[in-house]
Amino acid sequence: MTLAVPREPVPETRVALVPEVVRALTRGGTRVLVERGAGARATFSDAQYAEAGAELVDAVDLDAVDVVAHVSPLPAAALGRLREGALTIGMIGPPEPDRVAAALGRRITALGFERLPRTSRAQAMDALSSQAFVAGYRCVLEAAVRLPRFFPLAMTAAGTVPPARVVVLGVGVAGLQAIATARRLGAVVQANDIRPDSAEEVRSVGATFIDVGVDRREASGGYARDLREDDAARQRAALAPHIAAADVLITTAGVPGRPAPRLVTTDMVAAMRPGSVVVDMAAATGGNVEGSRPGEDVLVPCADGFGAVTVVGLDSPAGALAADASSMYAQNVKALLGLLVRDGEIAVDLDDDILDGVVVTHDGVDRVAHRAQPPRPT
Amino acid sequence: MTLAVPREPVPETRVALVPEVVRALTRGGTRVLVERGAGARATFSDAQYAEAGAELVDAVDLDAVDVVAHVSPLPAAALGRLREGALTIGMIGPPEPDRVAAALGRRITALGFERLPRTSRAQAMDALSSQAFVAGYRCVLEAAVRLPRFFPLAMTAAGTVPPARVVVLGVGVAGLQAIATARRLGAVVQANDIRPDSAEEVRSVGATFIDVGVDRREASGGYARDLREDDAARQRAALAPHIAAADVLITTAGVPGRPAPRLVTTDMVAAMRPGSVVVDMAAATGGNVEGSRPGEDVLVPCADGFGAVTVVGLDSPAGALAADASSMYAQNVKALLGLLVRDGEIAVDLDDDILDGVVVTHDGVDRVAHRAQPPRPT
Repeated sequence: MTLAVPREPVPETRVALVPEVVRALTRGGTRVLVERGAGARATFSDAQYAEAGAELVDAVDLDAVDVVAHVSPLPAAALGRLREGALTIGMIGPPEPDRVAAALGRRITALGFERLPRTSRAQAMDALSSQAFVAGYRCVLEAAVRLPRFFPLAMTAAGTVPPARVVVLGVGVAGLQAIATARRLGAVVQANDIRPDSAEEVRSVGATFIDVGVDRREASGGYARDLREDDAARQRAALAPHIAAADVLITTAGVPGRPAPRLVTTDMVAAMRPGSVVVDMAAATGGNVEGSRPGEDVLVPCADGFGAVTVVGLDSPAGALAADASSMYAQNVKALLGLLVRDGEIAVDLDDDILDGVVVTHDGVDRVAHRAQPPRPT
Repeated sequence: MTLAVPREPVPETRVALVPEVVRALTRGGTRVLVERGAGARATFSDAQYAEAGAELVDAVDLDAVDVVAHVSPLPAAALGRLREGALTIGMIGPPEPDRVAAALGRRITALGFERLPRTSRAQAMDALSSQAFVAGYRCVLEAAVRLPRFFPLAMTAAGTVPPARVVVLGVGVAGLQAIATARRLGAVVQANDIRPDSAEEVRSVGATFIDVGVDRREASGGYARDLREDDAARQRAALAPHIAAADVLITTAGVPGRPAPRLVTTDMVAAMRPGSVVVDMAAATGGNVEGSRPGEDVLVPCADGFGAVTVVGLDSPAGALAADASSMYAQNVKALLGLLVRDGEIAVDLDDDILDGVVVTHDGVDRVAHRAQPPRPT
């Protein structure tokens, strides 16, 4: 079996396989081709890949490989050059017609992490979770480095400075990791999510749960569903005073397959103290915070006419921690490969619930368009 | 008594007094004049100062005030406009002839935090310590936000990522706070300082002491002295393997009144892994790290030809946390004022050891030039 790791397109900093995982695969008999410079932005050198048993190539001959492991969705042009029946593992992104057509035309077996079931057996393959874990950590650093105040309580001869107050909205993997990181740095943390189990999870990581008094609901995949607009308004009203009193607001809420829910209005941001920081992890999918822009800092003037709040729209928070994010992603790829390969041969068993979920095209069939299966959020 | 707080010149972000301290002073009968916008970059509004009892003015009439509280050294022009015999409290910077001449010409009583004795009684007035405390925290954030890896141990379904390894050189107030912050974030920390007590201090904050086997020495003010060159070479040789194995190196070493000691050569930096980060807190005073430049990130290519190490030259690390840094600075100013004011009148008692140290010009005398008193580091 031959597996290829392409250079990711700019601005992606991550790489699908890291040398440590390449070593495990080559020892198991897999031939691994790595495009020169593929790991460079994630701090992995060509020499490390070669030492791990990979063959370095200037450009992968896509027609000569069995599997392509990638991070960014493969462009239609690349899919069209793949060998008939080849397999791809990575993020698939939104279903763009030309990509789907290219995959179907070449009878590609395309696996999309976005559609992996959220079962315990699938945990080791769950790239969305591993990258959300990285993103949650990263959010807190982005906030702390912009805040003109301490996160921890500072007791010195020059007086005592109280700890920063952090509010986290959306308590999935990213939100829990944001809470844990903010707590590590010494902040006092409050959090909210509309999923039924979230109150207990929030408390288990040392934060206070903000009860917004709305009917919480959960979709089949373990993700929060959209709220009705009257519930959403009630939620905003309940959150507003907590946000106004916070030094830092971090939002990580996503609803599967839809634009991110708008949890926070500009008025709610403008009520915060001058110098406060808002980090919107969902900026790239529409934003939890009104006016956030992916990859940019937006200054929102404070309501009382003095100073501003910085709204940080994150674009690729996991990509900012490229080395460790790639290591974790590579472990996810390896785990998923483990499910596909039997005796050195690829065998796609669609009776396996994980593969049934994660395989989006196979043998010329668009399995997403033909199934009533809830997609996974990005 | 009338006390003035000027707007600090750009790029200073801090302000000498914050509204909370203004309130305490005005309640005690002091008239406080604050230049409009003085606290803006530190997130304090004119309205907050007014509410605390200050009078807001467009520009302070320097000839009409008894005391000026400042952060940046006052320029000669400002000193020359002060009322004869007025008092100034702040950082004095290096002894520039025109500033000294202006202070002597107006018979200014100039107090410079840099020359405050390091006694326990002076702790509450110690602005160098309070700002170093802020700087030490800040150093770690500057490193963490640039590192492509986690600080904490990350145990996930996608494998375990070991914690970052951080080395801190120079273990004064800033170094200890850097250690504490890196530890909070979950890093494994090693540290070194040539002062005799530093090993115990390092261990007390949870780090491992790197013994470099050189003769440690201490100057009268509790600061490390210069090493002889052969000791310095031995120190570098002993540190090199620890630095090469580190993800993050933070240097905070200063020697009173001299350029910062050069602890780390470019070769030592180039031996670190690609993506590693060096933060040089002493960049503005000559640098502990060869090639660091204040206010800039310098990329040092790794020795094995792949990747680079980022050397972050900090310029004003405390200024980056302007709100809390100003609050602590203001407490220091207030504490020092408490030593100067008796029954609402200023009384400079040079028999008091603190005032004897901190007063640099008085009654037309340059007390620094006429004393064999060790200066304090910046």
